[in-house]
Amino acid sequence: MKKSINNSTNLRLRLPVLVLVLEIVILVLYSCFVTYDDNANAKLQNNETNPMENSLYRDYPFFADVQVMIFLGFGCLLAFLRFYGFSGMVFNFLTATFAIQWAILMQGFFQFYYDGKIHLGVINLLNAEFACAVVLISFGAVLGKTSPVQLLVMAFLEVPIFAVTEWAVLKYIRINDAGGTILIHLFACYFGLGVTFVLYRPSLNEGHVKEITSYQSDILSVMGTLFLWVFWPSFNSALTFKGDDQHRAVLHTFIGLSSSTMTAFALTVVFNKKGKLTMADVQNVTLAGGVTVGASVDMMISPAASYALGVMGCTACFLGYKYLTPFLARRLRIQDQCGIHNLHGLTGLISSTAGICAILLATEETYGPSMYQIFSHRAPPEGDPKLLELQQLIPGLKPGLGRTAQEQALYQVAAVFTTIAASAIGGILTGFILNLPFLASPSDEDCFDDDLFFEILPCHCLVENNPNVL
Amino acid sequence: MKKSINNSTNLRLRLPVLVLVLEIVILVLYSCFVTYDDNANAKLQNNETNPMENSLYRDYPFFADVQVMIFLGFGCLLAFLRFYGFSGMVFNFLTATFAIQWAILMQGFFQFYYDGKIHLGVINLLNAEFACAVVLISFGAVLGKTSPVQLLVMAFLEVPIFAVTEWAVLKYIRINDAGGTILIHLFACYFGLGVTFVLYRPSLNEGHVKEITSYQSDILSVMGTLFLWVFWPSFNSALTFKGDDQHRAVLHTFIGLSSSTMTAFALTVVFNKKGKLTMADVQNVTLAGGVTVGASVDMMISPAASYALGVMGCTACFLGYKYLTPFLARRLRIQDQCGIHNLHGLTGLISSTAGICAILLATEETYGPSMYQIFSHRAPPEGDPKLLELQQLIPGLKPGLGRTAQEQALYQVAAVFTTIAASAIGGILTGFILNLPFLASPSDEDCFDDDLFFEILPCHCLVENNPNVL
Amino acid sequence: MKKSINNSTNLRLRLPVLVLVLEIVILVLYSCFVTYDDNANAKLQNNETNPMENSLYRDYPFFADVQVMIFLGFGCLLAFLRFYGFSGMVFNFLTATFAIQWAILMQGFFQFYYDGKIHLGVINLLNAEFACAVVLISFGAVLGKTSPVQLLVMAFLEVPIFAVTEWAVLKYIRINDAGGTILIHLFACYFGLGVTFVLYRPSLNEGHVKEITSYQSDILSVMGTLFLWVFWPSFNSALTFKGDDQHRAVLHTFIGLSSSTMTAFALTVVFNKKGKLTMADVQNVTLAGGVTVGASVDMMISPAASYALGVMGCTACFLGYKYLTPFLARRLRIQDQCGIHNLHGLTGLISSTAGICAILLATEETYGPSMYQIFSHRAPPEGDPKLLELQQLIPGLKPGLGRTAQEQALYQVAAVFTTIAASAIGGILTGFILNLPFLASPSDEDCFDDDLFFEILPCHCLVENNPNVL
Repeated sequence: MKKSINNSTNLRLRLPVLVLVLEIVILVLYSCFVTYDDNANAKLQNNETNPMENSLYRDYPFFADVQVMIFLGFGCLLAFLRFYGFSGMVFNFLTATFAIQWAILMQGFFQFYYDGKIHLGVINLLNAEFACAVVLISFGAVLGKTSPVQLLVMAFLEVPIFAVTEWAVLKYIRINDAGGTILIHLFACYFGLGVTFVLYRPSLNEGHVKEITSYQSDILSVMGTLFLWVFWPSFNSALTFKGDDQHRAVLHTFIGLSSSTMTAFALTVVFNKKGKLTMADVQNVTLAGGVTVGASVDMMISPAASYALGVMGCTACFLGYKYLTPFLARRLRIQDQCGIHNLHGLTGLISSTAGICAILLATEETYGPSMYQIFSHRAPPEGDPKLLELQQLIPGLKPGLGRTAQEQALYQVAAVFTTIAASAIGGILTGFILNLPFLASPSDEDCFDDDLFFEILPCHCLVENNPNVL
Repeated sequence: MKKSINNSTNLRLRLPVLVLVLEIVILVLYSCFVTYDDNANAKLQNNETNPMENSLYRDYPFFADVQVMIFLGFGCLLAFLRFYGFSGMVFNFLTATFAIQWAILMQGFFQFYYDGKIHLGVINLLNAEFACAVVLISFGAVLGKTSPVQLLVMAFLEVPIFAVTEWAVLKYIRINDAGGTILIHLFACYFGLGVTFVLYRPSLNEGHVKEITSYQSDILSVMGTLFLWVFWPSFNSALTFKGDDQHRAVLHTFIGLSSSTMTAFALTVVFNKKGKLTMADVQNVTLAGGVTVGASVDMMISPAASYALGVMGCTACFLGYKYLTPFLARRLRIQDQCGIHNLHGLTGLISSTAGICAILLATEETYGPSMYQIFSHRAPPEGDPKLLELQQLIPGLKPGLGRTAQEQALYQVAAVFTTIAASAIGGILTGFILNLPFLASPSDEDCFDDDLFFEILPCHCLVENNPNVL
Repeated sequence: MKKSINNSTNLRLRLPVLVLVLEIVILVLYSCFVTYDDNANAKLQNNETNPMENSLYRDYPFFADVQVMIFLGFGCLLAFLRFYGFSGMVFNFLTATFAIQWAILMQGFFQFYYDGKIHLGVINLLNAEFACAVVLISFGAVLGKTSPVQLLVMAFLEVPIFAVTEWAVLKYIRINDAGGTILIHLFACYFGLGVTFVLYRPSLNEGHVKEITSYQSDILSVMGTLFLWVFWPSFNSALTFKGDDQHRAVLHTFIGLSSSTMTAFALTVVFNKKGKLTMADVQNVTLAGGVTVGASVDMMISPAASYALGVMGCTACFLGYKYLTPFLARRLRIQDQCGIHNLHGLTGLISSTAGICAILLATEETYGPSMYQIFSHRAPPEGDPKLLELQQLIPGLKPGLGRTAQEQALYQVAAVFTTIAASAIGGILTGFILNLPFLASPSDEDCFDDDLFFEILPCHCLVENNPNVL
């Protein structure tokens, strides 16, 4: 009745050895390279620092919200399978925890490194949680078909590839992407598709006997959706400029999610044979609006535009689940378990397009002089007299590159293609490494089953003579 | 074994058409009328605006807490029925999402409309979530007996009726109601009772075979209660004056909830035949204190008074569940499914009375000059020399109406009756509209059953040969 | 099939009478002694107070996070038993609610009492929630073996003993304990062990037939773990100095939890016979790092040190669960149901040691002049010219005791022993009182069973002919 423990999937040595090695590496690197940033360093406090102006109070509320999304939101959402709830929730916990530690180092080297040290503050943790979200989205593509060892290795590889791409795009291409549409959602999606393409398992195209939900797992998964839904405005606005930019990001995200949710309920009923609601759509498609408003989330696109974006993103996402996911699995060998291509890929492409339109339509008439703050690469370069003039209106405005709207739009397009290419190639390479034999990959038969990796006591006993069960 | 899909309850066309119409209406109105408020408008930022003083940072933390209450708190709480958990949680999600979008417009026209536009900021979202809470409370009266189409129609009608009442009471009667006791709880309660009065189903008075809980659904519902409990101080204090007023609102709400919770545990045991705890009481009656402190939540009533209010509200609420709800159902044709009359009506009446007492007892000795800020209608009118004097002590004090305490108390009484009348009539009219035949109202037999509106796979298979179930 | 209701465990009179007495006592004391603190008192507001500088805005965000930990975090975590989920979650709710009310008074008399009144603000609530956490941790030692009456009596006794100890240690020994390692975790642990020592039940050493988990209860408990995990940085930093100190506390807690979580996954697999993950370890051992960084959480220990502390604390905690808990139960009559000695005791001792090392290693070179703010007892005493000099660099620095690092270290040692002694003795005395016959202590057979105290309907009916169950 119980499956025998296959040696090739036994974690006994593999997981502890891998964790030990990773911990030693991280500890050594933290010792050598990580110090406090100015806001966390006691030595730099003096009679000119005001404790209440510490960056902690600007960043921590958003960080706390994103924490809930990462650990409870993703955790519950990924626990939607009847026999794979432990794995969905707990592997998410493990993978997220590692990815953040690792991202602190990888992003640190690229973004927060000076004087020979990575300078650490809550802002780094916030950035690292975004890198972690990238890993967890990609995880969605291979849920149920991977061991925790494979997931750690995937995170180990994905985080640096992400950090390099992020750094290169931000430093050399220089884009507007406040909600992380391009760098988070598109990257995560195509990386995940690359991995799952290599990990293709033909037999799973016929469906797996354990690939089903239960009443409780569906409810749990909806709770995960609600955690994500509720805090998504914090996610999309966490890294924008403070003030009106962040304010708009909250508004647009909320409106986009709302219209997307309404649309999802309509579409799920239209396409169901019996005219009923399907829980999988409630769990996933409702969230499409949050991604779709991402690339233009801090711009003056108008509330109505964010509403329309929510409807469009949701529709694309829904149709993707309905038609594209099966097609990808059968024809292109891309088995996208949670349909991340619908929720993050298609919506990401729409969002990028919308962002480009918003860039092309931006005028000083609409934005006033703070246009050069939002579209910072359009600000006049150092030395330009217009810069000085603007700096009198917007104190602290940084010199930009003097790009026109059209130029910026082309750079956005370049960033989309660069990101997709880097992530897809990175994903495919990662997939090959995950296929190495000693990473405890489950057999086809053992997919979607907690029993392979969790100690689960058989507990038939007592059920019949105790009425409080159920 | 499965009930056949009755055409009259099939959502296939009804729900999508309704959603589509609503979305088009909303999108058109957003396009024509909704723009950013000053704090979200890039154009209004200049060298005199300090980004960190944006209203976002005052309103968003409270908004985020209320979000959790609306979507996770109400969502889980309403999922307390064994066969109706999907519906409780998911219809809450749909109804709330729509109600907020719609309230942004309706409240916008009445409260945030100038220069031909509704000006949108996070403060509007916060107000809209309160309107949404009104709809969700009313939903509690008809839970299990309504289709999602009916719920959307109810929200479509209730939101504008609420917005008009709110506007009229605030603009013409001018009351103190920081915690929303009168405008939120009493309105929601009597509207819901009006609706359920019209939707009366005699056969349900005998009890329904599916109107039962399960172990898991009871736990989920307690989680909902805890989400509401934990964030209720944010709910009651979100719209008070900043500073000491908001501080007191947090304290009173917390204390009122605490004493109410203790009392609920005592009462549930006293009235149980076997001297045991009843989960339904733990889920509902514990929360009574949060409503009961509402009308006087920002006043100097003393911590002890908020404690006493919690005890009184809880007792009334408990006795209401025990004696009044069955009476209403059998004698007055008012089937109040979740007992909203106990948790929001009785407590609301006690709270209103307490608020009136607090108004009558308020003196400058206790409050100092800021009495005229809290009781803003008692402030001297424009031109009164006392106003100038007070404005030197309390900068920014707005001119009032020069009311005496007794006058203000009478206006509060008027507001209570006006609100109850408007909501009850509105609810009854809404009930008649919900009875229209094409709104997919479930038959008596199909009440309290997810299966009517959700695609639920029969999943007997696998249970017997897999030990991880349960 | 149903056990008959034993009179000695019937709550019918016991619980309501106890609650009534407690409520009257609290209400009288609140009436006589509790008033608003300056930030919540309307009378003290004038043209020099800035509402946005009210202490509410500094304390409330942390308070809200701790609320979630107390009610949802502990609540779900303690619901890990299959037949004891209602009790775990609901007794936590009751006990926490009472403990906070009571702690407001007890801590109030010791810490917030002047002019004949306890002055109440959100900061008192925050402190009271820490006292409440103490009670809930101790509750973990006796989970499943105590009635709600016993739990209320335990809270009634533990809170004042804690308040006295806290006051004595802070006022006379004067220590550094930002994360509450000594005063919260060690106190709670040894108090709980004292209680369970007296409540020893030999028959439970053989295991109890109902002392098992279920798939759903394990998932729920992991959710509790995640709530605690996510908000633990707020817990550890809530009472530090504002600014860089609080910033470091957040960073260290996050890093310590992260490394502890990784380590827990490695250890659970190494020590499992089949090389699988054990849910009990995921639920508990992952959190060890949060306690372990506590005593030095605001110091300049370096990110790497907090990482190492997480690993060490987790390892000690894990080995404690594996070897020490069974030993304590069999040899020392200490049945520690949830293993609080591992998660709070062992980690607390490591943390205290680390704190002492950090104190000994602290230099002005590392901390700058703000060393005398963090290690406030090392600041020069009133009148010392160095004090004036420092106050120019750190405005508002308070005079200290002029202790050396070595002296402070010895005081820390003294505080550890004092706290352990006070709590153990207090716990033992409390245990004897809990053994009094009229407190509804469950029989051995009825342990770990909701059915003893909850109205649970037998609901076999309907399960077979409705497919949505499960």
